[in-house]
Amino acid sequence: MIITTQNKTAVKEPKITLVGAGPGDADLITIKGMKALQTADVVLYDALANEELLSFAPETAHKVYVGKRSGDHSYSQDAVNKLMIDYAINYGHVVRLKGGDPFVFGRGYEELDFAASYSIPTVVIPGISSSIGVPGLQQIPVTHRGLSESFWVVTATTASQEISNDLYDAARSKATVVILMGLHKLAEIAEIFKAEGKHRLPVALIQSGSTKNEKVVIGVVDTIVELAQENKVKAPAMMVFGNVVSLHPKFSPIREFYELVAQE
Amino acid sequence: MIITTQNKTAVKEPKITLVGAGPGDADLITIKGMKALQTADVVLYDALANEELLSFAPETAHKVYVGKRSGDHSYSQDAVNKLMIDYAINYGHVVRLKGGDPFVFGRGYEELDFAASYSIPTVVIPGISSSIGVPGLQQIPVTHRGLSESFWVVTATTASQEISNDLYDAARSKATVVILMGLHKLAEIAEIFKAEGKHRLPVALIQSGSTKNEKVVIGVVDTIVELAQENKVKAPAMMVFGNVVSLHPKFSPIREFYELVAQE
Repeated sequence: MIITTQNKTAVKEPKITLVGAGPGDADLITIKGMKALQTADVVLYDALANEELLSFAPETAHKVYVGKRSGDHSYSQDAVNKLMIDYAINYGHVVRLKGGDPFVFGRGYEELDFAASYSIPTVVIPGISSSIGVPGLQQIPVTHRGLSESFWVVTATTASQEISNDLYDAARSKATVVILMGLHKLAEIAEIFKAEGKHRLPVALIQSGSTKNEKVVIGVVDTIVELAQENKVKAPAMMVFGNVVSLHPKFSPIREFYELVAQE
Repeated sequence: MIITTQNKTAVKEPKITLVGAGPGDADLITIKGMKALQTADVVLYDALANEELLSFAPETAHKVYVGKRSGDHSYSQDAVNKLMIDYAINYGHVVRLKGGDPFVFGRGYEELDFAASYSIPTVVIPGISSSIGVPGLQQIPVTHRGLSESFWVVTATTASQEISNDLYDAARSKATVVILMGLHKLAEIAEIFKAEGKHRLPVALIQSGSTKNEKVVIGVVDTIVELAQENKVKAPAMMVFGNVVSLHPKFSPIREFYELVAQE
């Protein structure tokens, strides 16, 4: 994976910019992220970053897909790290475009750390995290007076593919719990909330948030697994557990059947 | 507060767009937020939204400051709600520009709800929340393998000006705890973490994140109150409690004196 070709006469200073691409809609990148792309010599992009964003980069820039899609052959984190360094040394400004925000389960810091070990300067440009932005676009507020004073963002599975211990604590808390990834663990996650007696806590599943494939399913802990199957919800999808979900219009028809755990 | 002047010949359809302005740097608004501003007839903006963003709105658009600055005369939430409706009915497209993300302690849903009671259509455009973006710009990741599997975002004080109960639970958890606002409660908050035995947990205070007035102070629970005074940290400031703070370069000089609660 060593790149030896060197077509340019003047070697640019290597530089790496980690850019959050946002949840999917290309217009949800920041102006700062767009400007970084406009000065990119190389763009390394993820599966979750919208490919339309590549059009902001100069035509001459190298655009390299390094995403992981389940089932596909994919680059390891190590390979991505090395590729990033090779491109920076050989071409100059590498924009590493990552879905959502680079630091929300994005392994962004590992990439920064690797770049630092080669003394390559780095900049971070935050992105709209799906954890806040995707429920927000659905007009589900992660916090709302009388319903939620905080929100807790968890990933379903840790590096070892087990349910994160933090998820058990989150299910016990009064926070709005936002779970990124891990739709395949939904039944297990619902059991964790049931064990806390939260059978009627409102739940939203949002597939492909902010894109044309967006799908929203609203239920409560006791019904959400069946609803996910009936509605054929597929990854990538996120989950929101909390009374704030009761504010979604799709909750109205079921409201009469389910008392809220807490009510405004 | 009723606006009766009607200068336009054709009355536009009323519409309200809630736009997250991001943490401060004007370039941290999304492209979608910028486009909404470009079609605004009226912009109602907050203290925390960067005023440079107003230049995206047409010259003819009304730009109205409705922010709350402590000490100043300020609009109540009720007054803002009514103003928003009056402007929408009389002028058309109202962009309600709010610092950070509209749904992270922004009372955004209350505004949507009020608009819905007048049957005025609403759209939400998320913004970069300071909770993730401001530590991110400082290269402090809210999650990082081996250091934090989740993050919990809390406001220091509730509507009743008391410390949120969720903050006690958050201090007990293994999550990265991000606290927005409430710098005046720092000493009380530090005591809550001390009561959990977390005297040496790394802490970051970030004042005016992403702006030219940005100031970063790094310490641990036992030292942070004194450091805040020494460094004259002022509101608006946010706090990050968690081992991820140990990744910041300013932590290196104190690392040898403080064992981390958990280490990679």
